[in-house]
Amino acid sequence: MKRVYLDHASATPVRREVIEAMLPYFDEHFGNPSTVYDLGSKIMEVIDDQRAKVATLIGAKAKEIIFTSSGAEANNLAVKGTALARQKKGKHIIISAIEHHSVLNSARFLERMDFEVTFLQVDEYGVVDPERLAKVITPETILVSIMHANNEIGTIEPISELASICREKGITFHTDAVASVGNIPVDVSDLGVDLLSISGVSLGAPKGIGALYFGGNLRLMPLIHGGIQEMGRRAGTENVPGIVGLGKASELALKELPDRVNYVRELRDLLASGILERIEQVKPTGHPDHRLPGHASYCVEAIEGEALLLMLNQEGIYVNTGSACASKALKTSPVLVAIGLRPDLAQGSIVFTLNHSNTNEDIEYVMKKFPQVVEKLRSFSPIWRKTSVA
Amino acid sequence: MKRVYLDHASATPVRREVIEAMLPYFDEHFGNPSTVYDLGSKIMEVIDDQRAKVATLIGAKAKEIIFTSSGAEANNLAVKGTALARQKKGKHIIISAIEHHSVLNSARFLERMDFEVTFLQVDEYGVVDPERLAKVITPETILVSIMHANNEIGTIEPISELASICREKGITFHTDAVASVGNIPVDVSDLGVDLLSISGVSLGAPKGIGALYFGGNLRLMPLIHGGIQEMGRRAGTENVPGIVGLGKASELALKELPDRVNYVRELRDLLASGILERIEQVKPTGHPDHRLPGHASYCVEAIEGEALLLMLNQEGIYVNTGSACASKALKTSPVLVAIGLRPDLAQGSIVFTLNHSNTNEDIEYVMKKFPQVVEKLRSFSPIWRKTSVA
Repeated sequence: MKRVYLDHASATPVRREVIEAMLPYFDEHFGNPSTVYDLGSKIMEVIDDQRAKVATLIGAKAKEIIFTSSGAEANNLAVKGTALARQKKGKHIIISAIEHHSVLNSARFLERMDFEVTFLQVDEYGVVDPERLAKVITPETILVSIMHANNEIGTIEPISELASICREKGITFHTDAVASVGNIPVDVSDLGVDLLSISGVSLGAPKGIGALYFGGNLRLMPLIHGGIQEMGRRAGTENVPGIVGLGKASELALKELPDRVNYVRELRDLLASGILERIEQVKPTGHPDHRLPGHASYCVEAIEGEALLLMLNQEGIYVNTGSACASKALKTSPVLVAIGLRPDLAQGSIVFTLNHSNTNEDIEYVMKKFPQVVEKLRSFSPIWRKTSVA
Repeated sequence: MKRVYLDHASATPVRREVIEAMLPYFDEHFGNPSTVYDLGSKIMEVIDDQRAKVATLIGAKAKEIIFTSSGAEANNLAVKGTALARQKKGKHIIISAIEHHSVLNSARFLERMDFEVTFLQVDEYGVVDPERLAKVITPETILVSIMHANNEIGTIEPISELASICREKGITFHTDAVASVGNIPVDVSDLGVDLLSISGVSLGAPKGIGALYFGGNLRLMPLIHGGIQEMGRRAGTENVPGIVGLGKASELALKELPDRVNYVRELRDLLASGILERIEQVKPTGHPDHRLPGHASYCVEAIEGEALLLMLNQEGIYVNTGSACASKALKTSPVLVAIGLRPDLAQGSIVFTLNHSNTNEDIEYVMKKFPQVVEKLRSFSPIWRKTSVA
């Protein structure tokens, strides 16, 4: 059966070049990088080379990259690490209402540690308004964390404007760029951020690796205490194959990004126009223009997202309904609630994330099957024709 | 040139069978386990199979295994996660003076969070005395963390006696078993522990994976907050290839362990008797009997351990001086200080960790080169013949 995979935000097959790059580091070059003999010190050089590759992709310096085990760990390290290191300056932090669970639940943890957290509301497109941010900053504010792009609705936030407000006031600014790095050009200087989280998964590196950019002379409490790996900011023997995979994937992304962006945007536009033409009562979510090029997201009236997902699965089409972690944990997505959707409409969430491996044929296949599946599910729905997306 | 690798506690080449088991999970079976469609739900089943394999190796149940990114992360999760979850019951924890940095520095972090930490002294062999533990327990004590085996001096601690003291008093007991699991039989019921840390590195799995056993109905504050992966105790997309590698390595260890233990002990005894015969003024460290079978450790009079290590490196022999993380961070090993060695003698620390891939020829080669290197270094030493191990 044909397989059309359109859930690249959740996972991506690791490319042959990336696997080939990693393989020697499982056995041939297996040394512990912290050891002083040649088998180890050579590996430390390899790690630093990868650090430079990841840094180059985002316009940073090698020494500003800390490898972590995931984007979620990078987010935890950024949010909790900054808050715990800077708490003598104040105990107020600000995050948006549509952050990933790893930022959201780090903030909730800090609330239990007597921090005050402001959850910044977003507009109907999921955009954080810089003026609204400026208003909630207090003299106690030490950290603001706003994601670069939202994985569920595709919206890209005005990070450079938001960060500049914080920079003026000496407030540390973190952005979760898990959904953007590898999909659009990202430059930490242009964005003006202090901390930026990266995940291997969305970059085409394997699972189990991520990174945190941290600029300047920031203070950061480690999340994993122990040895002096990662400049004392993240203990534990380095995941050398994973790091090499992330380095290779970053190198490929840098080289291919301009082509990827254009190619994927055209495919996405084809999908988007097809959906709006052939399916009635479907509401696009997220910003119409300021969005990830490979991202298309909707709420489909009178349909339950998970049922839709499973029916498409039977046709060999793989999509998501909300973020991967949220899909099992929660019935209604907090992101869709935050942009003001009716709860029953929010149930019909469907998210397509394309990448450069997708083709025109993939989109044609989806456009053949998707309307059929919607029609079938609506034929069972007790609320179809009783509600409306408008 | 011949290569004799005797630093298996720092890193081990991943075996072909383990790499082969992992490979399909980079590309063919790449789905995100948290997704509900078949590509994801099949991977979740695979993860649970690996959980069962790791559990079987240590006599636990599958649901009692949490995958982490390293032994260091497992130690952080156990120590900080328990302390933060149980702090309403009391804020006193006890660790031994010879714990790994990931336990030691987690405890130091807790001190900054207003916990009181007792660092339990050890005897000249590095053994924690159960009576001494019983004496320092207070009504405020919520957690005791004593390592199963010490990576630097090889000593195996009397964990079942130590844990039973804690169990009677309702105190959570954690053991860092990074140095023991895969090298000796480990059974959580026999040990009577609540939490036990495992590292992939010492088991023959790749870097970037570890696990924490947690028994019963323990409360544990996650270290990495976010989604509901790992039963809500560790967020972030699962490192599927790493988990499969750890599962396969556990399976192999279970099958091969009895042979490995005998084989490696014989080789180690050969090395140990050779060293004591052919090199004067060398002091074995750690317990003579209650020690890891593949572990031999010494302090060599009038020699600097790092110089010794680098000279051996030139002969193709790979050994360590203290723990891998400590070797770059600190001049004098806290473990060797804790067992009461003269600081200058402690500088001459050398650690051999053998595994089943080593051979008689390896040991013969070491016995040819090691005495020569020692002699050469001593010929440069200003203190040789002025001090003595006795």
